[in-house]
Amino acid sequence: MEQMPFQLTILGSSSATPTSERYPTAQVLNVLGRFFLIDCGEGTQHQIRKNNISLLKINHIFISHLHGDHFFGLIGIIATMGLMGRKIDLHIYAHSELQKYTKSQLKYLKMEDLGYQLIFHPLNFKKPQTIFEDKKLKITSFPLNHRIDCCGFRFDEQPRDPNIIKEQIDHYNIAIKSIKDIKAGEDFVTETGEIIPNSKLVRKPLKPRSYAFCSDTCYFEKIVEQIKNVDLLYHEATFAEAEKDLAKKTFHSTAIQAAKIASLSKAKKLLIGHFSARYKDTKILQYEARTIFRNSFAVKENKTYSVKQLLKIKK
Amino acid sequence: MEQMPFQLTILGSSSATPTSERYPTAQVLNVLGRFFLIDCGEGTQHQIRKNNISLLKINHIFISHLHGDHFFGLIGIIATMGLMGRKIDLHIYAHSELQKYTKSQLKYLKMEDLGYQLIFHPLNFKKPQTIFEDKKLKITSFPLNHRIDCCGFRFDEQPRDPNIIKEQIDHYNIAIKSIKDIKAGEDFVTETGEIIPNSKLVRKPLKPRSYAFCSDTCYFEKIVEQIKNVDLLYHEATFAEAEKDLAKKTFHSTAIQAAKIASLSKAKKLLIGHFSARYKDTKILQYEARTIFRNSFAVKENKTYSVKQLLKIKK
Repeated sequence: MEQMPFQLTILGSSSATPTSERYPTAQVLNVLGRFFLIDCGEGTQHQIRKNNISLLKINHIFISHLHGDHFFGLIGIIATMGLMGRKIDLHIYAHSELQKYTKSQLKYLKMEDLGYQLIFHPLNFKKPQTIFEDKKLKITSFPLNHRIDCCGFRFDEQPRDPNIIKEQIDHYNIAIKSIKDIKAGEDFVTETGEIIPNSKLVRKPLKPRSYAFCSDTCYFEKIVEQIKNVDLLYHEATFAEAEKDLAKKTFHSTAIQAAKIASLSKAKKLLIGHFSARYKDTKILQYEARTIFRNSFAVKENKTYSVKQLLKIKK
Repeated sequence: MEQMPFQLTILGSSSATPTSERYPTAQVLNVLGRFFLIDCGEGTQHQIRKNNISLLKINHIFISHLHGDHFFGLIGIIATMGLMGRKIDLHIYAHSELQKYTKSQLKYLKMEDLGYQLIFHPLNFKKPQTIFEDKKLKITSFPLNHRIDCCGFRFDEQPRDPNIIKEQIDHYNIAIKSIKDIKAGEDFVTETGEIIPNSKLVRKPLKPRSYAFCSDTCYFEKIVEQIKNVDLLYHEATFAEAEKDLAKKTFHSTAIQAAKIASLSKAKKLLIGHFSARYKDTKILQYEARTIFRNSFAVKENKTYSVKQLLKIKK
């Protein structure tokens, strides 16, 4: 089966103090060839190029909160897109303050006419909200618990119609007008009165895939409801368990706390990131997470994590 | 002879459209252990760490002009310095608009109290100006010719006193009060009336070293007077000669134009940079520059170019 992409590329994995090895937070989620940028620390445009992602294919940018390590790369991307001759709208989902901040920056830079439109979508930091929806994808924001207003994001493929088996359509000479009914689950009756059960005419649809992004936040069980059963969960793990008190004080999480959230939400796979500069090697964080949730991975920058397409129910 | 550093580290060499291989303009000049940051494109703090330069050792930042590829990295550095607990003043030499811009950014970020002071020094875009001077170093700004107000910077070591030869002081039993006169060039008369010529008592001082930075600018002969006889000259060379018309139109220079300026100003060595993204390999630019000025080099990022200490007159 040819896989349609649902894959996350990690562009940055450090917390606020950058290291020579790691960039601040930024990720690109590729859903069926559409590219969604999640957070945008300084250097993101450099990392995007390094990963051979076309900047102009990004039409939606999600900013979790207004700490510099999550959005200082935004103005550079906005400016470069203008230089590259972008014409189509760029949608930015963020705190309403970011619109004012960006407008003020562009005014000082005398760059008010970018050649394309910035469309800002203010986030709701009190309750979950659908911020994007079309036939193929639904994106929800939900409040995290950090020092300042902060949102996580959940990306869900929409449920698909069952796939008609073309050979059977030809075989039973089924008219186009009947196909809608078959897709809706009905059996088919031939001209001779023979009943063909629906299960013979369709393949089960592919299972919708999902991804949730949670950074930055302290341990916060309220999010479990929002991220239930995701295939891929990214949860910040700034600290190891030895720094649990510091994590609490700074409204960040430990690797074990991230793993607890993954376990409670029944995620299939956990990625941890937003590593404190003190961890040159992040294996310790991965080890700790795995004591609670086996399928945990400390992210590597410039690595792509794919969620495979699976049939809804295996036969 | 132990060399005291006068060396330039290239952090970025691309023009406005970044590439996956090159960062936007930024350089650090190390003069006798003091670090001066010249321009500050996005990603500069990452590059500074990569080159093992301590961010907190940088007390002076020079911004040539307010195009994003020359200063989008500034806010990140300002924020990180605060996170690192900086206490001492940070001096920023730039267009007066940058102060307003930065203050407005810090206000939106609720970061007005950084824990240290930003001291802004507005540049003069009409005429050359001494912007920094102490016993060891003098820094001058001078207007370049670009689409917007833009300055170059010249760094000159101050002339040094001759070095007293300690052994001779002991040998002739010279009193401390006489040393000032000897440094000023006088001979010494011993208690017995013997005249010791000055040349026997001092070594010639080391030659003051100099560096000039010229980016961004079109071909502009007026700067020759300001950058005369520098040991090391950086001049932008965004384009090869085939793109001469584009260079003129965008107020940038070709490699050959940079070399002409180096030649006219009698620079010892020319570094070219600010390369257009169209040149994957910058050798073409180096070749072209060398047709006019032999000692030309297309800069490499993360490379350090040193100016050696030489005696003023070799004996």
